[in-house]
Amino acid sequence: MTNILVAQMNQLTKLSEEEALAIEESFPIRSFDKGHFLLQQGQVAKDSYFVIKGCVRKYSTNSDGEDRTTDFFTEGHSVANFNSLSNQKPSNHSFVCSEKTTVAVLNTEKEKALYKRFPRFEAICRVEFEKMMGEKVDDFEKFVGKTPEEKYLYVLKERPDLINRVPQYQLASYLGVKPETLSRIRKRIIQQ
Amino acid sequence: MTNILVAQMNQLTKLSEEEALAIEESFPIRSFDKGHFLLQQGQVAKDSYFVIKGCVRKYSTNSDGEDRTTDFFTEGHSVANFNSLSNQKPSNHSFVCSEKTTVAVLNTEKEKALYKRFPRFEAICRVEFEKMMGEKVDDFEKFVGKTPEEKYLYVLKERPDLINRVPQYQLASYLGVKPETLSRIRKRIIQQ
Repeated sequence: MTNILVAQMNQLTKLSEEEALAIEESFPIRSFDKGHFLLQQGQVAKDSYFVIKGCVRKYSTNSDGEDRTTDFFTEGHSVANFNSLSNQKPSNHSFVCSEKTTVAVLNTEKEKALYKRFPRFEAICRVEFEKMMGEKVDDFEKFVGKTPEEKYLYVLKERPDLINRVPQYQLASYLGVKPETLSRIRKRIIQQ
Repeated sequence: MTNILVAQMNQLTKLSEEEALAIEESFPIRSFDKGHFLLQQGQVAKDSYFVIKGCVRKYSTNSDGEDRTTDFFTEGHSVANFNSLSNQKPSNHSFVCSEKTTVAVLNTEKEKALYKRFPRFEAICRVEFEKMMGEKVDDFEKFVGKTPEEKYLYVLKERPDLINRVPQYQLASYLGVKPETLSRIRKRIIQQ
């Protein structure tokens, strides 16, 4: 089976065999059980991840010990805390596998070494990173400006798999409401 | 006077005279009057900006014709819509000068040409971009999770200049409340 990162890079540029092999060796594929932490709040990140199969939940715990879910990452998504990775700051949130999850592990040091060995990758990845961050910021701004009901409709339309895939209290937290309110929103939408 | 972008790059790496000159020539300094649009909603961006002096407001207009202010950029901030720049999509917001504003203009094509001429800049700018985006995303997430009163206290603490610098209805919009509510929040805080 072709490594998915190699496949993605191959869409951007024709890779030599040496380049493809180096990518595969640099960024290993790993599987983690449900409940495994890819990053814990307070830790400094050294890896980011590309989800091949599974679901990762992003959440933060406030000073009252309350959890707030802020994102879910599924197949094809990148999971990274760039502020922690780039500025070596303790992470203000956790990434936890909410089901058995297979990822490619992108270690910062190995990434740097790869750019040193194949300088042309740096330009390609810079452009892709800018595209990805641009989309991410736009999506996020669109989401946070909505009411809880609009957010639920957005999830129904854009990410319907989440509805049955994640526990309802986590979905409610992601929408910024209590589970009871999510039930009411659901009923209202079904009745319409 | 030293060009501010040259000064910033010089902090990251020792620039040759040729490199410094190329940066100055690539990214001209320009001044715009209050009310000038750096980017209009619906346009595809081709430039980004670094604010040397002044204030730029980010806002979007919804289908009911209502404006919502989502950010203010002042001295030292970068003003860019990365989704529009990188993915060539129409911008979902506008950038307007809310006072007379001096910026360095960073054109995407000129940036590419500069990287081609000085490949070492690409790696430096990639790392800086990741750091900046990391901070930006973290700040934004911190801000949106707050109540309007907490947001106001955040602005008071982190960006006190905004309080007197921008019209109150725009500040209210930025906090997600009506101007009357902002007045009430102010009074409550003064009384405490």
